[in-house]
Amino acid sequence: MKSIAIYPGTFDPFTNGHLDIVKRAAAIFDKVVVAVLINGAKKPIFSVEERVSQLKECLKPFANVEVESFDGLLADYMTKRNINVAIRGLRAVSDLEYEFQIAHTNRMLKKDMETVFLMPSAKYTYLTSTIVREVYSHGGRIKDMLPENVERELIRVYGG
Amino acid sequence: MKSIAIYPGTFDPFTNGHLDIVKRAAAIFDKVVVAVLINGAKKPIFSVEERVSQLKECLKPFANVEVESFDGLLADYMTKRNINVAIRGLRAVSDLEYEFQIAHTNRMLKKDMETVFLMPSAKYTYLTSTIVREVYSHGGRIKDMLPENVERELIRVYGG
Amino acid sequence: MKSIAIYPGTFDPFTNGHLDIVKRAAAIFDKVVVAVLINGAKKPIFSVEERVSQLKECLKPFANVEVESFDGLLADYMTKRNINVAIRGLRAVSDLEYEFQIAHTNRMLKKDMETVFLMPSAKYTYLTSTIVREVYSHGGRIKDMLPENVERELIRVYGG
Amino acid sequence: MKSIAIYPGTFDPFTNGHLDIVKRAAAIFDKVVVAVLINGAKKPIFSVEERVSQLKECLKPFANVEVESFDGLLADYMTKRNINVAIRGLRAVSDLEYEFQIAHTNRMLKKDMETVFLMPSAKYTYLTSTIVREVYSHGGRIKDMLPENVERELIRVYGG
Amino acid sequence: MKSIAIYPGTFDPFTNGHLDIVKRAAAIFDKVVVAVLINGAKKPIFSVEERVSQLKECLKPFANVEVESFDGLLADYMTKRNINVAIRGLRAVSDLEYEFQIAHTNRMLKKDMETVFLMPSAKYTYLTSTIVREVYSHGGRIKDMLPENVERELIRVYGG
Amino acid sequence: MKSIAIYPGTFDPFTNGHLDIVKRAAAIFDKVVVAVLINGAKKPIFSVEERVSQLKECLKPFANVEVESFDGLLADYMTKRNINVAIRGLRAVSDLEYEFQIAHTNRMLKKDMETVFLMPSAKYTYLTSTIVREVYSHGGRIKDMLPENVERELIRVYGG
Repeated sequence: MKSIAIYPGTFDPFTNGHLDIVKRAAAIFDKVVVAVLINGAKKPIFSVEERVSQLKECLKPFANVEVESFDGLLADYMTKRNINVAIRGLRAVSDLEYEFQIAHTNRMLKKDMETVFLMPSAKYTYLTSTIVREVYSHGGRIKDMLPENVERELIRVYGG
Repeated sequence: MKSIAIYPGTFDPFTNGHLDIVKRAAAIFDKVVVAVLINGAKKPIFSVEERVSQLKECLKPFANVEVESFDGLLADYMTKRNINVAIRGLRAVSDLEYEFQIAHTNRMLKKDMETVFLMPSAKYTYLTSTIVREVYSHGGRIKDMLPENVERELIRVYGG
Repeated sequence: MKSIAIYPGTFDPFTNGHLDIVKRAAAIFDKVVVAVLINGAKKPIFSVEERVSQLKECLKPFANVEVESFDGLLADYMTKRNINVAIRGLRAVSDLEYEFQIAHTNRMLKKDMETVFLMPSAKYTYLTSTIVREVYSHGGRIKDMLPENVERELIRVYGG
Repeated sequence: MKSIAIYPGTFDPFTNGHLDIVKRAAAIFDKVVVAVLINGAKKPIFSVEERVSQLKECLKPFANVEVESFDGLLADYMTKRNINVAIRGLRAVSDLEYEFQIAHTNRMLKKDMETVFLMPSAKYTYLTSTIVREVYSHGGRIKDMLPENVERELIRVYGG
Repeated sequence: MKSIAIYPGTFDPFTNGHLDIVKRAAAIFDKVVVAVLINGAKKPIFSVEERVSQLKECLKPFANVEVESFDGLLADYMTKRNINVAIRGLRAVSDLEYEFQIAHTNRMLKKDMETVFLMPSAKYTYLTSTIVREVYSHGGRIKDMLPENVERELIRVYGG
Repeated sequence: MKSIAIYPGTFDPFTNGHLDIVKRAAAIFDKVVVAVLINGAKKPIFSVEERVSQLKECLKPFANVEVESFDGLLADYMTKRNINVAIRGLRAVSDLEYEFQIAHTNRMLKKDMETVFLMPSAKYTYLTSTIVREVYSHGGRIKDMLPENVERELIRVYGG
């Protein structure tokens, strides 16, 4: 049996915290599908295509990681792709209740679906895409917050 | 060495809970700068100028408190003003994680910046600017929620 | 003395979790008024009239439950209706702080007002109107989430 | 139908926070039974008899409040006394999870049992019997923490 | 690569909530080692040998689950057994911080160790070994709390 | 006015997380008194004298930090020493409620007392004296958890 898991998210932008979770997942499962949610962000910094392309580049070192995009309910997409395990990063107490709500709802929608929570490195406990966007929009330093190629793209498109 | 701290916020409106924190900070530090964030509120009740003026009036009794406004990232403003200590009121668990996220991000932006959390009087645990705006907009009684001059202005501008 | 309590909410839509709380309240108090807040939802699925009518139908089995709608502050409406006890369902930690904030504010507005918190059945811990709307809007299965007549109406109006 | 509720606790000692909850409960229910748990405290300050007697004295002003003691599981005692509603004070997030655990367990033990959570006045949010014992044992001032007669007894027995 | 995970605990007694987690883990990993911590309980109801034997009986239906006992630090035992993934059930907010503390400490002790958090069925959110011991010691009904064989043993040894 | 603050604790042992807080406090206040609570630990690893001596050694680089020990209530000791500001490290949500309880109680005992909460570096979020004791007692690696001289003493006294 090959174990396979999906790591869904908006990833706008994909941070070093997300990367940390992918690394951990890739060491646990035979295959990890990183899936960018279409329409997850209201006014995205990067289009879904740009995010998929950036993710493919920075996740190239991980042989068992694939990058995709999906639309609609995660439970439906997992049924279509025949995947039963979803991965979520868990950073803090406020995350927990939201994540539990999502995970329990997913179980109602798809009985055999399991959500696996991983804990990022402590240094990423307070790093989120929202924080990155906020800091960047005010001209703040985002060094060490993003994978190199994502940071480079951000500066190329929006200026530094 | 004269100790100096900044107390940043949107203060729309400035409540008795905020006033409680300023009093405590003024008893700890040699100088406290209360700094109104420009563009912090989407559709403010009071303009930044009005808030600065109201704050100056109600904080007049505190000889070591100054009122200013600032734009952009707090970390940048603190560097410009040569201040290393920021003050935040901490009321509840949900505050904590948001405040920690902000404080850790600020540390990434400015290494020597320290956030000092103060606890308001228990009676202000559940008082926020949002609550005041909500109650007032429905014609509710806001007595004891705001400093006298702020309440007076609110009634003068919006009616009571 | 006949004990009477009000259960206020937006109920857009009214879920099986809400129904669970009404049942519990109806077993404790002589009379329970379920009160739909007018203007509580930005872009409601159902109009206030539709919700009142749906609630009347599915709460018919409870002889001591009445359904109404109200506008403005709950504290004012309770004063007008001469009711002192408000009921709120409490599901999780994140609920708690928001509910405490509301309840303490209500006490400032109406001294003799008491908020009584009830705990829903564990299986409804993660069920909210927001979750139902989200799942339904993406074509997900909402079976077991809503009272039968509310689910039927949802499908009749929006399609299944 | 006369509504009746039980307020169980160790009450060693009974604080002004407990008194606040009794007052609120007595305004909601036709009758409130305050029930001191026998064997609830390892090395009690006051014996169960002393606590019952102190409670009877300070709760005399409330015509619809009775004081008792009980042993064993609350659910069993409530069945014996034919009471279905238990009252608990809810002060903080850490309370919530413990109280929910108790309340859900009680529901497993007695299907028709309901736990009603009341919120004390904000000024009692951080007052517990443990805090009182700790402060008193180190010679600290416990004024305003206890009903007058309980404080008097504490000083009479243990010195002030 | 065969995926293998360890599920460590005191399991005194092993509850239906623990069983729920084992089932979920067994569906995700190729092999799951359930490991009873020696000396985890001060005054255990069942000896480690009894617990291992009970667990072996009730987990017999799961072909890919093994039962063991271990002493000392989990990180050391996992190194010895060449296992990198530990499983923990996550029920509530108060669990989270304790579990994060353990998991981060384990990472300091063993760099390649990963903790995977699973969410039990909602009906087990409030079920713990402590609750079972407490209820049982007061003669309460523990039906539906324990696997059949564990309940039977409890009654055989301690009476019902 | 020279600002002075006290940092009280049991410090058994003093960890790198405590050291981190002292450094931050020493950068904010003119003088910081680190005060070891006598009788804070049931079965201490190090006597109060040993802890004071270890602290003096590892805090020698900080010219404005003094080390003392105290007995009884912190509020009383602060009155005697004429200090109004207490410092506490705040790591997590579970800390918060306990610390708020202590801080509010201290305010009841000493009106002009202020508690200032500082946030340790993210890497120390999950490091506590209890964790260190637990890991060490099972022969685990405590490197990077303690100041060098404290670690050396631990190994000298208890073996490595």
